[in-house]
Amino acid sequence: MIFLLLAVELVINLFDLKKVTILDIAKELNITFSTVARALNDHPAISAATKQSVRETAERLGYRPNKVASSLRSGKTKIIGILVPRLDVSFFSSVVHGVEGVMNENGYTILLYQSQESLKQENKGIETFLRSRVDGIIASISLETEVAGSYAEIRDRNIPLAFFDRVPPELNVPSVTIDDYRGGFMATEHLIASGYRRIVHINQYRNINIFNERLRGYLDALERYGIPVDERLIIRGDFSLEFGRQCVRDLLAEGIDFDAVFTLEDFTAMGVVQELKASGKRIPEEVGVVGFANEAFTSLVSPTISTVDQRTVEMGEEIARLFLKLLKKGDYYKHKPEKLVLEPKLLIRESSSRRHFPPSSGR
Amino acid sequence: MIFLLLAVELVINLFDLKKVTILDIAKELNITFSTVARALNDHPAISAATKQSVRETAERLGYRPNKVASSLRSGKTKIIGILVPRLDVSFFSSVVHGVEGVMNENGYTILLYQSQESLKQENKGIETFLRSRVDGIIASISLETEVAGSYAEIRDRNIPLAFFDRVPPELNVPSVTIDDYRGGFMATEHLIASGYRRIVHINQYRNINIFNERLRGYLDALERYGIPVDERLIIRGDFSLEFGRQCVRDLLAEGIDFDAVFTLEDFTAMGVVQELKASGKRIPEEVGVVGFANEAFTSLVSPTISTVDQRTVEMGEEIARLFLKLLKKGDYYKHKPEKLVLEPKLLIRESSSRRHFPPSSGR
Repeated sequence: MIFLLLAVELVINLFDLKKVTILDIAKELNITFSTVARALNDHPAISAATKQSVRETAERLGYRPNKVASSLRSGKTKIIGILVPRLDVSFFSSVVHGVEGVMNENGYTILLYQSQESLKQENKGIETFLRSRVDGIIASISLETEVAGSYAEIRDRNIPLAFFDRVPPELNVPSVTIDDYRGGFMATEHLIASGYRRIVHINQYRNINIFNERLRGYLDALERYGIPVDERLIIRGDFSLEFGRQCVRDLLAEGIDFDAVFTLEDFTAMGVVQELKASGKRIPEEVGVVGFANEAFTSLVSPTISTVDQRTVEMGEEIARLFLKLLKKGDYYKHKPEKLVLEPKLLIRESSSRRHFPPSSGR
Repeated sequence: MIFLLLAVELVINLFDLKKVTILDIAKELNITFSTVARALNDHPAISAATKQSVRETAERLGYRPNKVASSLRSGKTKIIGILVPRLDVSFFSSVVHGVEGVMNENGYTILLYQSQESLKQENKGIETFLRSRVDGIIASISLETEVAGSYAEIRDRNIPLAFFDRVPPELNVPSVTIDDYRGGFMATEHLIASGYRRIVHINQYRNINIFNERLRGYLDALERYGIPVDERLIIRGDFSLEFGRQCVRDLLAEGIDFDAVFTLEDFTAMGVVQELKASGKRIPEEVGVVGFANEAFTSLVSPTISTVDQRTVEMGEEIARLFLKLLKKGDYYKHKPEKLVLEPKLLIRESSSRRHFPPSSGR
């Protein structure tokens, strides 16, 4: 298939033949325009023999696919590229699992590429997928990606593209995300309802939309329940287990009063838990902890860590379904892109399950 | 690059030109045969300008690569496919990390494919990589893969292939593995040295070499220290956290006496720890636990779980280096394949750190 397309393009490139249209092929074979178009699109209603003769004629006449090139190409390799920051965190590997389930059922194969949170690597991944002639790309952007860049090029080349979770700001293509604002709000509201008042929020220093939204949810929950915002309780850094430990060490060293920590993701929460334990603080009696992402380890450690589940498998399945729809359309970006926002799910575990708290701090 | 090759083949296909050789190109450009050959092989000693003119001439004359097609192809896409059972376990994602580090430094891009432990999916992955024109494949086989099958075809097509960790039995290609026998022996010896005598071993029911070797290490350690083998203590199943829990439930229900559990991998060990805790057994005082693989969570849970580290990043780096050597050879399988075996590393953590054990059971 690909070979044919390249072949056709090549003949043009090498010998510069005059512009040949689908009508020329139809006339030559004495069949309808529509039959030729569908044959070139590998439509199941057209017999293999007809497809064969259409292709041979297209080749012989030097037909150049032109506008239909991409739709011709789509469905040809049956390979979809998924570009993610990394696969060694449950969040991404679990979404990928969801995508693979639906895509495999529909006869597609998935190739994966890790950007390692690097913009340079991400661009290389896009280039590699295009060279591998994937039918489309599903992506979640790296932390370094602040503009659409290479992604805009994919769209401009009319190759199907969709995003999940981390979406570049200005690019208008389909996406599935969760409501990060709601996640931040729910986590904070739960801590407030459990009687915590001095709630630290650890976030990220970069301008990443999903993390900004979690912060906004935290701030709105505080406001809703009349708890003043203390800027010293909002910490920004590069999330990791070690950063979580560092934050607790700093808070304790500076004597800042706090009774709960809500972190933007789970590894940081794990570090917070480790350092609190090392400092002899009782969780959840003295300090409550809530993470974000429902990483596999959060249900295995002691205490188990409360977290916000992002419905990863469902997110993967939804983006796959949305993408299959996209693949069926001829001109992907002429239509208003579907943007699905899933509701996150708060998982209350041991690290924030305080039943007896000081009445003074109760609601 | 690919385009050129296809282009060249195409011109031949479409217009059936007479057979053109490297000599024709050399004569045309007034350079040596060797320069043309090296230019076509993208040799670093040849200038970009020469390569360009060789390619243009090859194109113009309709040169068909023929026997050198594969070596021409190698190094052209600069894409390497890595096929692994799954990426949501630390072991595989960590090896991949090691491979990517070395390969990226050397200008290669990595595409990933998950077989999901299914032979059918694995074959689809191989096919997809070949269609994507990867320069070679690095793989670790699925649990269902008992013969070389599609892998033999890759080798027969003279496309570079290497394995890590899980290697198909009869295929003679390069590989990097760890000494699983040593791992099983070390884990068991450590439990014996800590005074445990009734050591359960949970293994896998399939005929997978690496797991058989861990069992062999267990048996030899028992023999070395004069501890009789009790068949009731050797359990086989499909490893998982749930299976680990089930094993402990069964052992307790059947009243089988045991004071330690060595599992073939860490998720099973995690299940063993959970069920022992649920049954009120003290770890490591009453029962010691050792897993295998050093999954990320084993150092986060409580008690931390002793395990056998497989030096994953190093394994990835070594297989990448070995693979780069392979890529440089013209005829990959004419040479005796390098097979590197790494020594595993026992990590003694809380789950087996018994200091005071009954003198009767001491060594």
